[in-house]
Amino acid sequence: MSDYYGTKLRLSIYGGSHDIEIGVRLNGLPAGEQIDKEALLQFMGRRAPGKASYSTKRKESDTPVFLSGLDEQNRLTGDPIHAAIYNENARSSDYNNLADIPRPSHADFAARMKYGKDVDLRGGGHFSGRLTAPLCIAGGICLQLLQKKGITIGAHIYALHGLLDTPYPLVSLTPDLLNVTKNRTFPVLSDEAEEKMKEEIEKARLDCDSVGGIVECGITGLPAGLGEHLFYGMESRIANIVFGVPAVKGIEFGNGFACAQLKGSENNDPFILKDGVVQTKTNNAGGILGGMTTGMPLVFRAAIKPTPSIAKPQRSVNLATMEETTLVIKGRHDPCILPRAVPVMEAAAAIAIMDALLEEDKWN
Amino acid sequence: MSDYYGTKLRLSIYGGSHDIEIGVRLNGLPAGEQIDKEALLQFMGRRAPGKASYSTKRKESDTPVFLSGLDEQNRLTGDPIHAAIYNENARSSDYNNLADIPRPSHADFAARMKYGKDVDLRGGGHFSGRLTAPLCIAGGICLQLLQKKGITIGAHIYALHGLLDTPYPLVSLTPDLLNVTKNRTFPVLSDEAEEKMKEEIEKARLDCDSVGGIVECGITGLPAGLGEHLFYGMESRIANIVFGVPAVKGIEFGNGFACAQLKGSENNDPFILKDGVVQTKTNNAGGILGGMTTGMPLVFRAAIKPTPSIAKPQRSVNLATMEETTLVIKGRHDPCILPRAVPVMEAAAAIAIMDALLEEDKWN
Amino acid sequence: MSDYYGTKLRLSIYGGSHDIEIGVRLNGLPAGEQIDKEALLQFMGRRAPGKASYSTKRKESDTPVFLSGLDEQNRLTGDPIHAAIYNENARSSDYNNLADIPRPSHADFAARMKYGKDVDLRGGGHFSGRLTAPLCIAGGICLQLLQKKGITIGAHIYALHGLLDTPYPLVSLTPDLLNVTKNRTFPVLSDEAEEKMKEEIEKARLDCDSVGGIVECGITGLPAGLGEHLFYGMESRIANIVFGVPAVKGIEFGNGFACAQLKGSENNDPFILKDGVVQTKTNNAGGILGGMTTGMPLVFRAAIKPTPSIAKPQRSVNLATMEETTLVIKGRHDPCILPRAVPVMEAAAAIAIMDALLEEDKWN
Amino acid sequence: MSDYYGTKLRLSIYGGSHDIEIGVRLNGLPAGEQIDKEALLQFMGRRAPGKASYSTKRKESDTPVFLSGLDEQNRLTGDPIHAAIYNENARSSDYNNLADIPRPSHADFAARMKYGKDVDLRGGGHFSGRLTAPLCIAGGICLQLLQKKGITIGAHIYALHGLLDTPYPLVSLTPDLLNVTKNRTFPVLSDEAEEKMKEEIEKARLDCDSVGGIVECGITGLPAGLGEHLFYGMESRIANIVFGVPAVKGIEFGNGFACAQLKGSENNDPFILKDGVVQTKTNNAGGILGGMTTGMPLVFRAAIKPTPSIAKPQRSVNLATMEETTLVIKGRHDPCILPRAVPVMEAAAAIAIMDALLEEDKWN
Repeated sequence: MSDYYGTKLRLSIYGGSHDIEIGVRLNGLPAGEQIDKEALLQFMGRRAPGKASYSTKRKESDTPVFLSGLDEQNRLTGDPIHAAIYNENARSSDYNNLADIPRPSHADFAARMKYGKDVDLRGGGHFSGRLTAPLCIAGGICLQLLQKKGITIGAHIYALHGLLDTPYPLVSLTPDLLNVTKNRTFPVLSDEAEEKMKEEIEKARLDCDSVGGIVECGITGLPAGLGEHLFYGMESRIANIVFGVPAVKGIEFGNGFACAQLKGSENNDPFILKDGVVQTKTNNAGGILGGMTTGMPLVFRAAIKPTPSIAKPQRSVNLATMEETTLVIKGRHDPCILPRAVPVMEAAAAIAIMDALLEEDKWN
Repeated sequence: MSDYYGTKLRLSIYGGSHDIEIGVRLNGLPAGEQIDKEALLQFMGRRAPGKASYSTKRKESDTPVFLSGLDEQNRLTGDPIHAAIYNENARSSDYNNLADIPRPSHADFAARMKYGKDVDLRGGGHFSGRLTAPLCIAGGICLQLLQKKGITIGAHIYALHGLLDTPYPLVSLTPDLLNVTKNRTFPVLSDEAEEKMKEEIEKARLDCDSVGGIVECGITGLPAGLGEHLFYGMESRIANIVFGVPAVKGIEFGNGFACAQLKGSENNDPFILKDGVVQTKTNNAGGILGGMTTGMPLVFRAAIKPTPSIAKPQRSVNLATMEETTLVIKGRHDPCILPRAVPVMEAAAAIAIMDALLEEDKWN
Repeated sequence: MSDYYGTKLRLSIYGGSHDIEIGVRLNGLPAGEQIDKEALLQFMGRRAPGKASYSTKRKESDTPVFLSGLDEQNRLTGDPIHAAIYNENARSSDYNNLADIPRPSHADFAARMKYGKDVDLRGGGHFSGRLTAPLCIAGGICLQLLQKKGITIGAHIYALHGLLDTPYPLVSLTPDLLNVTKNRTFPVLSDEAEEKMKEEIEKARLDCDSVGGIVECGITGLPAGLGEHLFYGMESRIANIVFGVPAVKGIEFGNGFACAQLKGSENNDPFILKDGVVQTKTNNAGGILGGMTTGMPLVFRAAIKPTPSIAKPQRSVNLATMEETTLVIKGRHDPCILPRAVPVMEAAAAIAIMDALLEEDKWN
Repeated sequence: MSDYYGTKLRLSIYGGSHDIEIGVRLNGLPAGEQIDKEALLQFMGRRAPGKASYSTKRKESDTPVFLSGLDEQNRLTGDPIHAAIYNENARSSDYNNLADIPRPSHADFAARMKYGKDVDLRGGGHFSGRLTAPLCIAGGICLQLLQKKGITIGAHIYALHGLLDTPYPLVSLTPDLLNVTKNRTFPVLSDEAEEKMKEEIEKARLDCDSVGGIVECGITGLPAGLGEHLFYGMESRIANIVFGVPAVKGIEFGNGFACAQLKGSENNDPFILKDGVVQTKTNNAGGILGGMTTGMPLVFRAAIKPTPSIAKPQRSVNLATMEETTLVIKGRHDPCILPRAVPVMEAAAAIAIMDALLEEDKWN
């Protein structure tokens, strides 16, 4: 079940990080719309590693091959979209020494407990950030479709090892602001934040260490009343897919955990009329009440832990000999995945929103 | 779809807060186990309002009537559990003036946008905390079953309007500690926190206001390797149901959002041997890696916003006349739902865990 | 899982034949449409027993109580329809002697093997025709909605213990013909068939025996292209729900099993133009090709076995003593359920069609 | 949704008949079991065309490439099985003239109504018997797993254009009898039937025509009590997948439609003791009562229409010019698909049984 997401839209991701093929199937998209393939590749390029010193040196060719779902004019045929990515650069030998010594804060140990001794530990298998590439194919297509309906999704690095970017304004968030990071090589709003964060990443790299942070994602243009109460509320739908992205440890909507320190009279968002339209004066709710969108910008934040693959020696246990040992992880690793996580969050959000729109017959 | 949760276990909750009947169906529990009905009622009593000054005066009789699923000895028959709660004390007249004036930070407005003018606004309908009562029936049964397998779930008020209780220790969390709040009238670990928090709630009540907070929930005794990668990881499964509880605005696992400020070398949990068993020295992961349990205590925190129903006058818009107006909400309202949210979080967690165990054939 | 059906429409039936309450929940119907409750009760009356000598003497009050989903004007609110039927006339004592001696061709034995000794054998539990009453509530509502869109569903007794009614014409089937049985006390097209079949049933009754038969169901007004290939074709969808009706042992579409005796040149339905519209000259396909509707009338037939509850002494085995024995079933039983199965087939078909239309966004 | 089947087991089939790749994913199989790949290829060989004069000349290489799910020793890893078949011999030019003239009794017309003018008519697309190849990969694996548990599934041509093979005995069906057709080039039990049926097929071939028939499938070794009442009964589960196989127009269980001509006293299967075990004297029920297995052999029959692709000129309508026309279908076509449908029915049954066993935790 675990590689499926969605109700009306059906997303299925397959493959492991070092398999000869990984890919995605996406059922349920409406037929007819044209996809801008060049823009899709550009979107995926934002996730791809190897662009800068803050990213792994491993070169992945993320170019998707479409087996079905697109015709020769790149229009959706109504068939499931099936896109494969062929791994051209798999190097499993780097990982051989991991077989019996689980990497701290990786999925290795839990996978071994689950699957037993034969579990394929090479590169983390399914538990790899590599699978966010097919997620971005599906999400990138949804992003284009949503944009045509006036729904804009964007994200930025909200925080990186304590350094803050300018946050999205909850009430006055605009499509233009959401689009800022799509044209920057480093996905923040503020030049100053870029400079400091890059320094921090470089410092971590030199220290053979890594750093975590928070991605903030915003959505404008949503109709009010999207989502359902209880288990199919928008928070549930979004959290479900966002926690499917490796390294996410928390999610919050609107003012999120900060609401815990407020009184009702401070946290409540009064209704006002603005240009004849009902809005809320504040948007602590982050655009969701009772599981349903309010028509205000939808904003969420996801906490992303520091990459667990660090070159520093670490304590671990040899599961074959049952002795404590010191582990040194070789290979190529990101000191910080936050820049690459930004488009992944956009993709995840787009899939969740698209699914909800289709499920509730709000697409056309 | 929205009132369904689960894969192998199928939870379905029905009814609105002022309907003559609300209830729950729970398919997929193993047959044979005996339920302690007295303990179940006691568990539900922890959620019930009307016990103290910090809780709404509305008396709800939450006593469930079992239509199927339990035999005369209170053993699970293998049939779906179907329990109904009959509303004895519905008072819809208090809500009549709400029809056209949405309450700030309630579901009213979004529901009106979704369902149009005819939406039944009485008491919030489905979007009511009242539906956590059937959730507690289902969760209370799961809690008993899990306890028999050595899996203990407990929760406490971690924070209330900035005031902190003693947090659960991530590494050394014990069943005994998880059980502390089950025997206290106010669900915290520390007497001092109880006193201060109660004062804070009373202050809010006198101010016609409300306060929010954070519930922390812990689980011990889980096998390692429970949960799946991608969209059926334990974070996704738990977040999905927890966001189904009204007023939750954020969730985090382990050290959660704090991980964003750490380096990998600080955040990683080294593996060690303790009494011959592989454990982690720290538990920043909160017992989950790669979507799977690690065998360490599972800990999550949910941010709960202040009750939006406050007696203070608030700004809103009359949707019939499209004029701004001032709204005064009458009726009986909790100045703080945190104490009642504690067992609800236990129930939600129990259902998510039970579903995962059954889905992965780890029950027997 | 077993009491759920549907993808976009979600049908859930609950209760056992002698429970204090049985009922149905139906999620996913569009809001706004008005239901004719009087007509719904009349439809359910066609299924109800006790009308004639060919039917069980047990009086069931099938009057549904709507807990949610209908407003005071009997309009669909968009909420799940939840209708309960309270059993006023349960008489479980008749069944007490069945506990250890399974009735031939009943579910008793298989249920005992499944659930063990404690299985509740009273009246067959879930495996009872009684649960077709909630099916008819859901189906009756769908039938009304479909009729408003010009989709007519009707059924008749095609065969009864070898006696044949006039079959539906596969090509020229009309709504008028489908409506014939709705106004007859005995659901056949031909007066002569009625007379002979009634005699046959009376003969079976006097013999303490029962008789089986075939129900034929037709649907006109369907759009072409409804249904999907593979596992969500219209045959799969309809067969899935029709086999959920107790006593059904076979289903065929169009000319069905007769196709096995034909050549392709005989069985193929040539396309022709009729009044400028593409039709098929014959309709051996029964209105379905490749899992999709063709726009021609959809026709299927369901084989219904003779009621297994007969008053004649029968051989069985006492499962407590493990000795062969003779069983005499007391109580009130139908010598033939065919007349009552006719509206049940209409209801089942209506639910399957409604679900497919909603799933494929073909409702509006 | 339409290419998914199953609850605990999740089958997904992808690709169209002339795509560069078709394949199957199968989630949920237990890990550890070893697959005999040679035997699997042999099983698929029974479905493959091109072996004899009664089969299409088109050579398909059905050799599956396993992308995941099998390790180097051909053991199930617990990961989803993902097997691809690459189309080496696609010849779409034969089909070009079909674009506007739908073939009688093919999916062409309905697909055009569903998808509009752009629908890819080449070879039937998804609506092709070609997709039974991936079904046979999944089913062939399930067959091997079931056989290890003592559950045997076999099938034969029960009837072909009116010619009958020896039927399976409902009560005394044995694994040996079910295995007979696995070692014959023509899947019948009787030499005489083989001779006559082959003649009939050859006659149809020479006549540029085709013939239909009935496949009978039997299953021994099932535990009693498998399956659930209502919509997840064994008949529903099996019918759901069997109708996913192209050309199936009817299905019946046990004595099937013949029950319609019997009295209850004739159709009921009395319980007897045989060697201390409770059995039924007859098995008109075909091994299923109340949706659950009885422990007696499970037997069903599927009616398969004559291949609609015949070389004889046929009437059709040119959808571009809206004029009646005569269509001659070129290319290579089976005059009878019954021999190839036999292993497909075994595969379909195996998947349905495997899913039910896993769903009900009856695998281990």
